[in-house]
Amino acid sequence: MSRPVLLFSGQWADLPLEDLVTKVAEWGYQGVELCCWGDHFEIPRGVREDDYCQHRLDLFAKHDVQPLVLSQHRVGQAICDPIEPRHRRILPDHIWGDGDPVGVRERAVEDMMASIRLAQKLGIGLITGFTGSPFWAGVTGYPTLTHEEVVEGLRTFAELWTPILDACHEAGIRFALEVHPGQVAFDLVSAEMVLDALEGREDFGFLFDPSHLHWQGIDPVEFLRRFPDRIFHVHIKDIALTLNGRTGVLNGYQGPGDSRRGWHFRCPGHGGIDWEGLIRGLNAIHYEGALAVEISDAGMDREYAADEAAKFVKRLDFPPR
Amino acid sequence: MSRPVLLFSGQWADLPLEDLVTKVAEWGYQGVELCCWGDHFEIPRGVREDDYCQHRLDLFAKHDVQPLVLSQHRVGQAICDPIEPRHRRILPDHIWGDGDPVGVRERAVEDMMASIRLAQKLGIGLITGFTGSPFWAGVTGYPTLTHEEVVEGLRTFAELWTPILDACHEAGIRFALEVHPGQVAFDLVSAEMVLDALEGREDFGFLFDPSHLHWQGIDPVEFLRRFPDRIFHVHIKDIALTLNGRTGVLNGYQGPGDSRRGWHFRCPGHGGIDWEGLIRGLNAIHYEGALAVEISDAGMDREYAADEAAKFVKRLDFPPR
Amino acid sequence: MSRPVLLFSGQWADLPLEDLVTKVAEWGYQGVELCCWGDHFEIPRGVREDDYCQHRLDLFAKHDVQPLVLSQHRVGQAICDPIEPRHRRILPDHIWGDGDPVGVRERAVEDMMASIRLAQKLGIGLITGFTGSPFWAGVTGYPTLTHEEVVEGLRTFAELWTPILDACHEAGIRFALEVHPGQVAFDLVSAEMVLDALEGREDFGFLFDPSHLHWQGIDPVEFLRRFPDRIFHVHIKDIALTLNGRTGVLNGYQGPGDSRRGWHFRCPGHGGIDWEGLIRGLNAIHYEGALAVEISDAGMDREYAADEAAKFVKRLDFPPR
Amino acid sequence: MSRPVLLFSGQWADLPLEDLVTKVAEWGYQGVELCCWGDHFEIPRGVREDDYCQHRLDLFAKHDVQPLVLSQHRVGQAICDPIEPRHRRILPDHIWGDGDPVGVRERAVEDMMASIRLAQKLGIGLITGFTGSPFWAGVTGYPTLTHEEVVEGLRTFAELWTPILDACHEAGIRFALEVHPGQVAFDLVSAEMVLDALEGREDFGFLFDPSHLHWQGIDPVEFLRRFPDRIFHVHIKDIALTLNGRTGVLNGYQGPGDSRRGWHFRCPGHGGIDWEGLIRGLNAIHYEGALAVEISDAGMDREYAADEAAKFVKRLDFPPR
Amino acid sequence: MSRPVLLFSGQWADLPLEDLVTKVAEWGYQGVELCCWGDHFEIPRGVREDDYCQHRLDLFAKHDVQPLVLSQHRVGQAICDPIEPRHRRILPDHIWGDGDPVGVRERAVEDMMASIRLAQKLGIGLITGFTGSPFWAGVTGYPTLTHEEVVEGLRTFAELWTPILDACHEAGIRFALEVHPGQVAFDLVSAEMVLDALEGREDFGFLFDPSHLHWQGIDPVEFLRRFPDRIFHVHIKDIALTLNGRTGVLNGYQGPGDSRRGWHFRCPGHGGIDWEGLIRGLNAIHYEGALAVEISDAGMDREYAADEAAKFVKRLDFPPR
Amino acid sequence: MSRPVLLFSGQWADLPLEDLVTKVAEWGYQGVELCCWGDHFEIPRGVREDDYCQHRLDLFAKHDVQPLVLSQHRVGQAICDPIEPRHRRILPDHIWGDGDPVGVRERAVEDMMASIRLAQKLGIGLITGFTGSPFWAGVTGYPTLTHEEVVEGLRTFAELWTPILDACHEAGIRFALEVHPGQVAFDLVSAEMVLDALEGREDFGFLFDPSHLHWQGIDPVEFLRRFPDRIFHVHIKDIALTLNGRTGVLNGYQGPGDSRRGWHFRCPGHGGIDWEGLIRGLNAIHYEGALAVEISDAGMDREYAADEAAKFVKRLDFPPR
Repeated sequence: MSRPVLLFSGQWADLPLEDLVTKVAEWGYQGVELCCWGDHFEIPRGVREDDYCQHRLDLFAKHDVQPLVLSQHRVGQAICDPIEPRHRRILPDHIWGDGDPVGVRERAVEDMMASIRLAQKLGIGLITGFTGSPFWAGVTGYPTLTHEEVVEGLRTFAELWTPILDACHEAGIRFALEVHPGQVAFDLVSAEMVLDALEGREDFGFLFDPSHLHWQGIDPVEFLRRFPDRIFHVHIKDIALTLNGRTGVLNGYQGPGDSRRGWHFRCPGHGGIDWEGLIRGLNAIHYEGALAVEISDAGMDREYAADEAAKFVKRLDFPPR
Repeated sequence: MSRPVLLFSGQWADLPLEDLVTKVAEWGYQGVELCCWGDHFEIPRGVREDDYCQHRLDLFAKHDVQPLVLSQHRVGQAICDPIEPRHRRILPDHIWGDGDPVGVRERAVEDMMASIRLAQKLGIGLITGFTGSPFWAGVTGYPTLTHEEVVEGLRTFAELWTPILDACHEAGIRFALEVHPGQVAFDLVSAEMVLDALEGREDFGFLFDPSHLHWQGIDPVEFLRRFPDRIFHVHIKDIALTLNGRTGVLNGYQGPGDSRRGWHFRCPGHGGIDWEGLIRGLNAIHYEGALAVEISDAGMDREYAADEAAKFVKRLDFPPR
Repeated sequence: MSRPVLLFSGQWADLPLEDLVTKVAEWGYQGVELCCWGDHFEIPRGVREDDYCQHRLDLFAKHDVQPLVLSQHRVGQAICDPIEPRHRRILPDHIWGDGDPVGVRERAVEDMMASIRLAQKLGIGLITGFTGSPFWAGVTGYPTLTHEEVVEGLRTFAELWTPILDACHEAGIRFALEVHPGQVAFDLVSAEMVLDALEGREDFGFLFDPSHLHWQGIDPVEFLRRFPDRIFHVHIKDIALTLNGRTGVLNGYQGPGDSRRGWHFRCPGHGGIDWEGLIRGLNAIHYEGALAVEISDAGMDREYAADEAAKFVKRLDFPPR
Repeated sequence: MSRPVLLFSGQWADLPLEDLVTKVAEWGYQGVELCCWGDHFEIPRGVREDDYCQHRLDLFAKHDVQPLVLSQHRVGQAICDPIEPRHRRILPDHIWGDGDPVGVRERAVEDMMASIRLAQKLGIGLITGFTGSPFWAGVTGYPTLTHEEVVEGLRTFAELWTPILDACHEAGIRFALEVHPGQVAFDLVSAEMVLDALEGREDFGFLFDPSHLHWQGIDPVEFLRRFPDRIFHVHIKDIALTLNGRTGVLNGYQGPGDSRRGWHFRCPGHGGIDWEGLIRGLNAIHYEGALAVEISDAGMDREYAADEAAKFVKRLDFPPR
Repeated sequence: MSRPVLLFSGQWADLPLEDLVTKVAEWGYQGVELCCWGDHFEIPRGVREDDYCQHRLDLFAKHDVQPLVLSQHRVGQAICDPIEPRHRRILPDHIWGDGDPVGVRERAVEDMMASIRLAQKLGIGLITGFTGSPFWAGVTGYPTLTHEEVVEGLRTFAELWTPILDACHEAGIRFALEVHPGQVAFDLVSAEMVLDALEGREDFGFLFDPSHLHWQGIDPVEFLRRFPDRIFHVHIKDIALTLNGRTGVLNGYQGPGDSRRGWHFRCPGHGGIDWEGLIRGLNAIHYEGALAVEISDAGMDREYAADEAAKFVKRLDFPPR
Repeated sequence: MSRPVLLFSGQWADLPLEDLVTKVAEWGYQGVELCCWGDHFEIPRGVREDDYCQHRLDLFAKHDVQPLVLSQHRVGQAICDPIEPRHRRILPDHIWGDGDPVGVRERAVEDMMASIRLAQKLGIGLITGFTGSPFWAGVTGYPTLTHEEVVEGLRTFAELWTPILDACHEAGIRFALEVHPGQVAFDLVSAEMVLDALEGREDFGFLFDPSHLHWQGIDPVEFLRRFPDRIFHVHIKDIALTLNGRTGVLNGYQGPGDSRRGWHFRCPGHGGIDWEGLIRGLNAIHYEGALAVEISDAGMDREYAADEAAKFVKRLDFPPR
């Protein structure tokens, strides 16, 4: 099957985009999911400089690499989250400002709005991202949420995101929320409730990354079966469970690669994801979007990984009957 | 072995204490872990009424039931947590007040201080509770915490709790934090770091409840092995994993008993806890404290459960070599 | 919970009913699921002798044992099955006759009709049984059935059973098909299709016996969740899987107890059924019918088993919250 | 090891043989197991037309593809089965005729006899096929068979097949029954009893296809160990178990690819068969016959699968010590 | 079933026999397997003092406890083992002497001979014990044994034990080797070869203790199936596997109870033995001997354990069909 | 990563070294771990003939194959073992002599000393080998060792090996004991105790071969984590567990390839070792030594295996982050 194989640029934002694109082409990717941080795609410049988008497009064209998807994960997180000190690290200065939560949120919304217009200029039809969550601490901690509190929180989410989704709709762009801990949707039930909260609007769907479901004990293919027409984008990222009685499944206080963790993200094919089942699952729902490799592996050289992963995904992807 | 078998009164606060104590005696428990909500033990009345403590003691004596432990879980949660709407549900009005976070925290600290003095009057040597967490959303969500942010957050925790623990120390009372999601300690690594943050002070230890570790994939006995001299109290509560590909391990948006959950608390002996291993683990560390049954089971009549559990625990507890 | 605990009399038909009922009372059962073979309940005599039903009722009353359910498994099997030599063994002579398939079926239908009238005389509101299957060999063998063939076969089933179910309906009696290999319903999908074939008529439901689902790899509780209002009766029978690489899950050519089998029926509590989950599943659907112990264990004395099982089931059955 | 790698033509009978053979050569197969349906090999034409066999041989020679094995699965099924409507679909008109069971069986036997003579003309030394079963419904359903009934049924089988096997013997041809549900042999015990029923005649052995054993819970290698000198032919077909609590292992009413099934046939290497163990098992019994790939995968393009499978099998097959 | 339930006295040899027998009766055992160390049964006194045996019998009779089996494990070990320093600990001084291997072995053989005569005087028909092994280090270490070396070593074993077994035979006594690491028989293959080395003499069989097979990965019931008529005696001892990635299955350098071990002997019912399967296995081979509880549990008070185990075994043992 | 990939020559000692080296180069290995048996490297000739070492080096240079490690496994075994007949098979005549244990040990020590001097001449910095064990029979058999006996035995080991290690030290050579059943170190605890017995001297470390840990139930990566700076050399050998209820994990009386064994050594990639985890484990400890393939597979042609394994290891080895 000829699904385009992309590299998600988010983990490479320390490299200038041109350096990355050169490598991406060598490794054999057809395109990128372009992140809006580092110098990969700078929203303020796009707003300010008339030719910024065209220069970006020229750069891609020169290397025959397609920017098929625009990622606004970081700024999206600030929209529903209660702002805490740890957000400073992921937000650019022009959004963080003085860190006052009300202002941060407003600037984050503006930035999302700008990115929709710029995507249009780039000819990109899909924005991916996080949404944040108004009550994440209650979803996993204590006191847990009542049904009423969940409904109320999702109403807040819908109020904050509806204008953004309306702008998407007008621009002919779809938005895909990455189903991920810390977001309003992170498992099957939450994804159902989020769709309900948005009254099923069709420009909103999911970025499906099996790694975030696997450690929760969820079979990613069940997610595909449940939402066959809402899978707008796919991340190819692996994960290995390393439970040994002392490690646990929560992220916890240990950083990436720490052997006291209960799971580790891995280069595709080096973890526990059932890729066979996943491709069959995508075939069964007639998914025709891109497969975007996300390199996140604390134990492997990232360039070696990106090179290997491009070959892995192409070998993996077989045509349905 | 003659470890006292208690009932934790927290799930029964809808009943007047006297009704509960009558039942507790009939079921064969030797005592209770007395919660500070409902009418079980009211801190403001204890502060206000000179003979309140004595009346409570008289009530227990009448039924030959011992109040061995005092539980301050709910108010403790408010000390380190960023205060959110969901906290209103667990806090009494005199603490919630207008809900302004700064005031809530101050009143929560005062309440803890008062409970130490009252425990002394009751002749109780152990207070159990939650601590809350300054960064719980970051522990399980996005963005995750850096090592520096963890250290900084635990320093905040230590600053807030040190005066309380000092007051415990002076009163000859120990404090046991329930290792539990949503608290500063919830697994092995976090428990280590919390002890370090408090510089190993000996009046601070853990309330060990195996159910909160089991769903994380952690073997509760490994916790006992790692902290043999910090187990100040034990909850006997069971939990059943019900992963089926569609359910996940996070609490999520589904309430107790919902069949779309990945785990359910259960009456002791009705879930997946390895009680054999647990008793051996407690014997191996020479634990001589109480075993407090916590009845939390969305599928069983609670009085039936409390009755059965008392017998279960007594049958379970065997003497070491 | 006070669900009546019965003994299914089918495996005891070599004993005169009175002998069995005496034992049943001693073992502590409240009643029986009364089979229509041996001398337990003889349809021809019921038809012929006016006082037969009353004499049977007197016998039960004398021992304070209630005949709550009437089992017509064997004759029911002959209604949809292509008749083969092996049917001779389970059918009484007055039904087998010369063994010509058309006649056997007609006489089986008549016998079912008679049993409905007699159940009414006995004051029994539920008949249990098998239905046979017009195409069982194709369900498990070769060539497999096409969707059209399945639909056609189920139409045949519906035609044959509708008059019987109509008679039930008029008599105020419900019929419960035991979900079982060899019948039109044997798993979740087939049970759904059978209900559809009968257009969801409410006098038709299922006899749920977890042992027949377990070896198929099906979680019995999933069956309860799928058909919460169609569980008319429950068999308490256990089963042990003994797969070792050489044994398989099909019944095969080996008889009961042969160690080359892949599974064995067992006395309740001696096999692999998750009884804890089962009781919770029954509680969750508010099942209020009987629990009928079926003793089928090639490795245990049946009287010992029946005695033990009565105690087991009573200990097992706990009240929901 | 240089075992010949074949493609079983049965799943490709919608294509003219010449089209298939062209592809087979391109994919790198050395030969085919030639089925007697579609236009691949037509028994009536072989009987009628003197040069039919030679023309077929010429076609194979032209593409350097060897017809090493002749498959008579479908007609063989009709010899012992009680004939039902579903057989019409697999039988050619000249055998089905008016569908009267006695006539169908007679014509099926004649067809088998003809195929032996034609195999001889083709220079093929091995015929593979099904046998049908006189009592399959009883093997998996209700009432189950007694030992006496099994013995009686196998005697019937031996009577029907002995003349055919005698004809094989005279023609210097061996017959391999595919061990498969719906046939007289489908697991270890049944295979033993079938050999006994034929008094161990050496021209009768088995077509070993691991996929039909795997879902029964049987380790295919145990079959090889048990019958080291009776493995006349091998099918390379994979199978994936997809049990999830709601699906079961029986074929049931769901067709290929339905996600409510408990297993699915798969392209080799895409399922649960332990191919490493299988090759070692074949090496251990010094199997020197062919490896015939059978493409049956509801989720993969069959030409892609056939191409990939040829490479897979060659990579798999390693020489013993 | 009324198999006698015994206590093996070996772990209690620090207590005077009379003290033990008193307890044994209280706990509800019917008898003992009497060890020949401590003061339980002293071979030299039996040889020397005419009335020693009668006094022992009187003691048993007084408490209504039967000495049904005589255990000569320790001295038996010295017969085939290369003698090393560690043997000193288990051998009495009159056998160890100066520790010279030739003399130790001679005295061990004499002691065995004497015990046969004394068993006869006691009216005991079964002696249990170890045999030692001429090449145990090679069975588990390096260099491993060739087939010829195994045969040669078993010939040595047969030469050394044949006179002892001949004496048994003359005395009408059977000898049961405990299948156990360190002995000539420790698994299925070795047990077969040992029987062959003794040419199948019928006075030699096995003491079956499931705990020694379980950690080797062997299903104890398979041993029963393989040697149905050679099970002369049964030990009821449990074992728990505690593999966690760092522990291993070899005994190693860690002593009993060390949490770094991969397994631990346990009081019956507290480990991983499938007792249900075991009783069925014993029933299937019509075993009618005794069930001797062996208390070996580093984590439980031994008197508590012995008391509990007597009840456990009686509850466990059910009659076959 | 550019770790050198070697072939261990020990399994090829039946071939003249030159023949092997020719093949080794063709298969793509960079070097060998050179064994001191067969004609591969003959200590007596090295001692006797001045130019022997240079001739060996010339041979390697001619084929561009590096002799990076010298293996003295066999002679090393004789140093601590109680000498038994089975040792004759692995020892050369000049060491076995008359087989008297005292003399054998002395000659073995001399041979080790000589090999150190010769390694120096060859420019090899690492000798690998076995040590034997003074009490192996007690480690796995009966009577088990007390803590005091273990300490005493390891003291003996240290006394025997210290002079050898001192000679290594002077020669600038390190010695790596293969952690292996039959040696003083065979699991984590024993390896710790051995290091302690040698007071942590830095010229002594381990040859890590995951296959010897896997069947013990130990995760090889845990060994790497425990001894990060003591891994001097690595064997790449695989192993498959074949437990089926009748087989056990002990070596036992069955030879290689016998299907009644519970495990089998395998060509790398054909067994149960988690190679992914292993490479990550080696990366995590910054292991920079060689990866020496050991071909031991009773079911695969050894030349095919050696060829395949060279490619397997190169594909496996990826660079860390």
